Amino acid sequence: MGESNVKLLGWWASPFVLRARLALRLKSVSYEFIEENLLEPARSELLLKLNPLYKKIPVLIHDGKPIIESQAIVQYIDEVWPHAPSILPSDARQRADARIWISYIDDKLVPALIVRLVAETEDAKRAATAELEETVAMLERALRKLSKGKDFFGGDNIGYLDIAFGPFFLWIEVIDKFNEVKLLSEAKTPSLLRWAHKSFFSHAAVKDLLPDIEKLAEYALKFRPILIARFANK
Amino acid sequence: MGESNVKLLGWWASPFVLRARLALRLKSVSYEFIEENLLEPARSELLLKLNPLYKKIPVLIHDGKPIIESQAIVQYIDEVWPHAPSILPSDARQRADARIWISYIDDKLVPALIVRLVAETEDAKRAATAELEETVAMLERALRKLSKGKDFFGGDNIGYLDIAFGPFFLWIEVIDKFNEVKLLSEAKTPSLLRWAHKSFFSHAAVKDLLPDIEKLAEYALKFRPILIARFANK
Repeated sequence: MGESNVKLLGWWASPFVLRARLALRLKSVSYEFIEENLLEPARSELLLKLNPLYKKIPVLIHDGKPIIESQAIVQYIDEVWPHAPSILPSDARQRADARIWISYIDDKLVPALIVRLVAETEDAKRAATAELEETVAMLERALRKLSKGKDFFGGDNIGYLDIAFGPFFLWIEVIDKFNEVKLLSEAKTPSLLRWAHKSFFSHAAVKDLLPDIEKLAEYALKFRPILIARFANK
Repeated sequence: MGESNVKLLGWWASPFVLRARLALRLKSVSYEFIEENLLEPARSELLLKLNPLYKKIPVLIHDGKPIIESQAIVQYIDEVWPHAPSILPSDARQRADARIWISYIDDKLVPALIVRLVAETEDAKRAATAELEETVAMLERALRKLSKGKDFFGGDNIGYLDIAFGPFFLWIEVIDKFNEVKLLSEAKTPSLLRWAHKSFFSHAAVKDLLPDIEKLAEYALKFRPILIARFANK
């Protein structure tokens, strides 16, 4: 299956990298993990060579050739190792729904998380939190609609949308540690909390892979000045 | 094949809508086209009902249920009508390449086109044009690398990346009509020009569908104040 020839250039705390790792774990594909330390100021020569377009992780290296971008990587993994379990749903409409909501996560949730992380004044923090609350509420509604009361976004089995969202759910929890107003609560997001803590986090392919929230919160404090500097340069 | 039950909510000048129309045409799927006039200030009730998440076109309505977002729609069309011709490449790595470059178009080219269209001062126009030049140069290189000298991005046959990029190539041509510095030229973009004018525009599924450049340029002048107002409100 060419499994011996799989490498992943990534970093433990990156939610985009975790998507690729979750997909590889689900498919039982073994791989070499090459660390790209995001706390270092410069990107590695290997990353610049493999992903000159964006200079971002994750990069999957399969048979010596790079595949970039987490969405493309996860779909590639599902296609190249087509054995069970399937990551993408088998139904075309469910596949479309998963793709639409993953775009929503990447286009709305991720920027809102970053804006909240880099916010420096109380006003900016309040505005960013309000934006995040709205985004999280949309995802709560999406989960209720798509899962139809079952354990995962796609029904009985873990799939594309679960592994695309799960790593960012962790970052919502990290922000809740620092926020007075909580984004996640039994009153506002019962379905998301149940999905995360009863189904997703305890899944065999997930549980040893996700970083501990305390460790991630510590990392967030170190990573925040780097994010702020990056945005100041834009 | 459920073809009689296909509707598309769209607008003739929208490049995102053209992606969906090109996919339907390639698959010979007949459909009812419902116009959402983007020159009108308000969105239709139908659009607000079918796409409350983004309130954007295109919306494909299949068997009464909506599918939104051009990338998800094109993939859905290819999956629901799996007969030849295939829109997505059959090779997993080529599919990954197509997805990566379509993300590049949506994340880099589209915003650069919009920034150029709304630019009001000479300085803003110059900066936006420089950004666009860089983006177009990347796409010229991508075409050379991916097509390996053949007619289309994916080789001998028209496919996903061609239909995703083609409608935006038209808008590059529209901007060139108003710009002193030309983005497209035999010196800078020989491969893109050959692809567009020898292969893409003359393809049977494309040629009667794409709007005329003169008509699109006239439309651009009417649409520009709407775009400017939208960005001023952000």
